[in-house]
Amino acid sequence: MIKNLKSDYEELLSKTKDITVLYTVSSLAHWDMETKMPPRGINLRSQQLAMLSRVTHRMSVEPKIGQLLSTIENHKDHDSLNQLQKRNVHLIRKQYDEQTKLPEKLIVETARQEAITVDVWKKAKAAKKFSIFKPELEKMLELRKQAAQILMDVKNTETPYDALLDIYEPKMTTDMILKIFGKLREGLISIQDKCLNATRRPDVSFLKRKVSKGVQHKIAKELAKFIEYDIDSPRAGGRVDETEHPFTAGFYDDVRITTHYYENNLTSSMFSVLHEGGHAIYDQNLKKEWMFQPIGDSCSLGFHESQSRFVENVVGRSREFWQYFFPKLQDLTGTIFSNVTL
Amino acid sequence: MIKNLKSDYEELLSKTKDITVLYTVSSLAHWDMETKMPPRGINLRSQQLAMLSRVTHRMSVEPKIGQLLSTIENHKDHDSLNQLQKRNVHLIRKQYDEQTKLPEKLIVETARQEAITVDVWKKAKAAKKFSIFKPELEKMLELRKQAAQILMDVKNTETPYDALLDIYEPKMTTDMILKIFGKLREGLISIQDKCLNATRRPDVSFLKRKVSKGVQHKIAKELAKFIEYDIDSPRAGGRVDETEHPFTAGFYDDVRITTHYYENNLTSSMFSVLHEGGHAIYDQNLKKEWMFQPIGDSCSLGFHESQSRFVENVVGRSREFWQYFFPKLQDLTGTIFSNVTL
Repeated sequence: MIKNLKSDYEELLSKTKDITVLYTVSSLAHWDMETKMPPRGINLRSQQLAMLSRVTHRMSVEPKIGQLLSTIENHKDHDSLNQLQKRNVHLIRKQYDEQTKLPEKLIVETARQEAITVDVWKKAKAAKKFSIFKPELEKMLELRKQAAQILMDVKNTETPYDALLDIYEPKMTTDMILKIFGKLREGLISIQDKCLNATRRPDVSFLKRKVSKGVQHKIAKELAKFIEYDIDSPRAGGRVDETEHPFTAGFYDDVRITTHYYENNLTSSMFSVLHEGGHAIYDQNLKKEWMFQPIGDSCSLGFHESQSRFVENVVGRSREFWQYFFPKLQDLTGTIFSNVTL
Repeated sequence: MIKNLKSDYEELLSKTKDITVLYTVSSLAHWDMETKMPPRGINLRSQQLAMLSRVTHRMSVEPKIGQLLSTIENHKDHDSLNQLQKRNVHLIRKQYDEQTKLPEKLIVETARQEAITVDVWKKAKAAKKFSIFKPELEKMLELRKQAAQILMDVKNTETPYDALLDIYEPKMTTDMILKIFGKLREGLISIQDKCLNATRRPDVSFLKRKVSKGVQHKIAKELAKFIEYDIDSPRAGGRVDETEHPFTAGFYDDVRITTHYYENNLTSSMFSVLHEGGHAIYDQNLKKEWMFQPIGDSCSLGFHESQSRFVENVVGRSREFWQYFFPKLQDLTGTIFSNVTL
């Protein structure tokens, strides 16, 4: 690579790294909000997340990034960049064009409202009252609509929804999703019919037997160990906590999962640990040399979900897995499943 | 207050608030590092803390803050500010003068090294090997010496050490501390002599009876409740976790304490919970209207420590406290202390 092109490219990557590091701080603040934060902390937390989003947004729209991008893109030796470098430049350009169009006020208010909305959702769910959640959901929706409208122009999508969809699954459209889901629907309905019309059905009532949270946590640890998601060695890069709804959060060397323990539904936490664990080992095994580079990020939510569902369903629902795991499960649960066979 | 003076003052406070919010984010990242972070997260964490310190430092030295300060200080109606407002301006000026003299590189490297040093300290302590810790401590000391040298000039202190001391206890000097500790020493030695020469000594061996961590955590919760440090109601603003060394971290509505449970030393965790709880309720009861203002911060480390030691020693080591608490302790510990009387 030519000398000044190389230094421009490296400066661009260095600025991208700064932004990424700040995103990981927001991610930590979100994780803490869901898992450890005392309830009264929500007001300060929403202000912290708003402030982080403001600082991150300001760094993302720095004119210097735009200058570096233009210089690199128009450089006479641009073709001396390899494919990975070109891909980085492309992804940074995409991000820059989008961020510069979004007003800081909208970004900051969205971050603040997001924290409030999640908090109120938890309270509403506990109280089983949608009416508590509704006004905050409406505010959130309004803010996302504003962003969608702006991003539709930048991304040149057909609908505002497609502009948001692209954030999670690049270039995916509503049209394509309708086609895919339409085909899936046909197959699924025929499977469902077979099940509903089956004359011989397995007795699955044993799945509702009570297993304490403490024992379920031990099972979760055993599952983590099985998929080599390290949560307890001196080199561990993960942990398992309990939340209202399971999720995965983190970056490379520090990726944490959560689950929810229902005492009368052991498999709920078991499959959620395998699922989130699948997300986590994907994140942890992204290419180390690309850490902090756009190409080092996960490809898309679809890719992420393919990893989590592979572990949850292809592995976790296989006979081979249960041949291995069922004796362990029986050890950990005492007499609860002693009259159940593989 | 005169109109443009008022708007300048409010802009200054608003900038100060932004900086404070970012400090609380660093504080959260520190708390997580000590309590929840998986070990492999340390490298990313040190980069996050370095980045936060860089962003915070840049906001702290923004020339606009200097301009606002000068305008307010030299305003013909400066005297229309009340005492609290003048105190805020004074504290912001102090902070600004100090921060602008400290190079960004030193600030950032110190934040990064601090994270590494704490992490290595924990490993060295576990391995009982000072040699592991020594090189990192030396690097840390070197960085603090550089800051001390710079701050000595800004603060016009006699020694570099006094310049650092002032961060924790404003205007305190080595000279004053030597005098205070000198006097304390005399009194303490005479007390110690009396104890060592006493013929009748209480049998305190029962204090070493084994109490499981689980039970100690229940006792910690009961102590928190007693001092009205709320860690479990839907309005809680605190929590108790376990760390190698106890500490308190947080801000107003979200202040968390930690303790260390030694199974053969119950009172260690009991008094540390009372001590840290004393810090926490001081932080939580700072004046709400001054939240995010310099006058809303704790006065000094000495003040902080007076609150923690009041709860730990004046309350926690009083006969009145034990009259109240001993029956609860006996309830929580089963038969462990059944042959011990008040």
